[in-house]
Amino acid sequence: MTHPRPAAAPSARTRLRRMPEKAGYDRALIEAILDAMPVAHVGTVIDGAPVVIPTLQWREGDRIYWHGSAASRSLKAGRGAQVCVTVTFTDAMVLARSAFEHSVNHRSVMVFGTAQPVTDPAAKRAHLRAMVETLWPGRWDTLRPMTEQELKATAILSLPLTEASAKIAAAPPGGTDPGEDRAWPVWAGLIPLALATAAPVAAPDLPPGLALPESVARWRFGDRAR
Amino acid sequence: MTHPRPAAAPSARTRLRRMPEKAGYDRALIEAILDAMPVAHVGTVIDGAPVVIPTLQWREGDRIYWHGSAASRSLKAGRGAQVCVTVTFTDAMVLARSAFEHSVNHRSVMVFGTAQPVTDPAAKRAHLRAMVETLWPGRWDTLRPMTEQELKATAILSLPLTEASAKIAAAPPGGTDPGEDRAWPVWAGLIPLALATAAPVAAPDLPPGLALPESVARWRFGDRAR
Repeated sequence: MTHPRPAAAPSARTRLRRMPEKAGYDRALIEAILDAMPVAHVGTVIDGAPVVIPTLQWREGDRIYWHGSAASRSLKAGRGAQVCVTVTFTDAMVLARSAFEHSVNHRSVMVFGTAQPVTDPAAKRAHLRAMVETLWPGRWDTLRPMTEQELKATAILSLPLTEASAKIAAAPPGGTDPGEDRAWPVWAGLIPLALATAAPVAAPDLPPGLALPESVARWRFGDRAR
Repeated sequence: MTHPRPAAAPSARTRLRRMPEKAGYDRALIEAILDAMPVAHVGTVIDGAPVVIPTLQWREGDRIYWHGSAASRSLKAGRGAQVCVTVTFTDAMVLARSAFEHSVNHRSVMVFGTAQPVTDPAAKRAHLRAMVETLWPGRWDTLRPMTEQELKATAILSLPLTEASAKIAAAPPGGTDPGEDRAWPVWAGLIPLALATAAPVAAPDLPPGLALPESVARWRFGDRAR
């Protein structure tokens, strides 16, 4: 956030029409949220109806990527088609004095566009390596190498970040109640939420002498270094 | 899970084609996941392209509901249209011996169907009450009452659970590596994940003498009683 890049111009879809004070097209903010939250929900259109599936996304420069089985209907439907990739952090439940002002503090990014498949086997391998290295730096070279058959069974799609927006809802503990509601005699405030990581659990049949890698031990949602 | 209801017959969309061992149409399982995870991602189709937004969902019997501003494009587009509501718990990162077998343990539910709007003001009020009472039992009657203007500004959509499926991916710490990979000299195991709740933070300007309600103090994702 100290060196924001030029923001992409908002498109009709990314221009948030309500609560514009919460919208952001700042590229550094968009990238920070994407980098901190690998879990995404990808929307595609299949037979005219939306289908939303959870998946992992990772960013390489100006694009995000996601992958799955080559047999996946969602990945097949997304090839060359319009998709929407949304990532969301839920930061707090906001308990206000009125039902109407209750809300959820959150940070989310939506990326729209036409998904491009990665088809070249060498490129697929490089992107899968980037995924693993993004999550756990140094891990790829320690793994049993990927086979040609595994590469064939894996589909990868990507989207540019040209049509992306961030939204941040960050009500303070006092909420967003108008002044005339603030004396109402009900408890109001925040219930903070976070994705927590517990201590890694080793496979019971690891070869002896394998230490827990540092990149696994310190893995967290939300504060991964890039 | 001790008294499963008759499962809805899977439709072409909810029949999971890959990894069917992980799919479930058991109604009690579907309801348990929906009840434990209020954060949903709702997919609609706007101008032919998918739009996925985060929102809260709640269940009343055989239907789920979600709401938002009456000016929301997603809620307007969803009225009488095909939508997909997906909720996801991410339970663990699964670190395998090969990149291919890495995965995310998760529990998710997808609900498909034609979204029906709630338009009657009394019904809208009753459903919003149900939402608040589902999250924090006893809270609705303590709030500053909802105004007619607030009701008008709120749109509510709902879906029946007739076309819903659950998916559970629950690899053990040993992962899903085939036998020939298990001696590979790399650390393998799980990084457990959970949505954590921190202590509630009171608004700084609460009237004196207001205690933290029990339903707020013990609020958690994942273990709310119904």
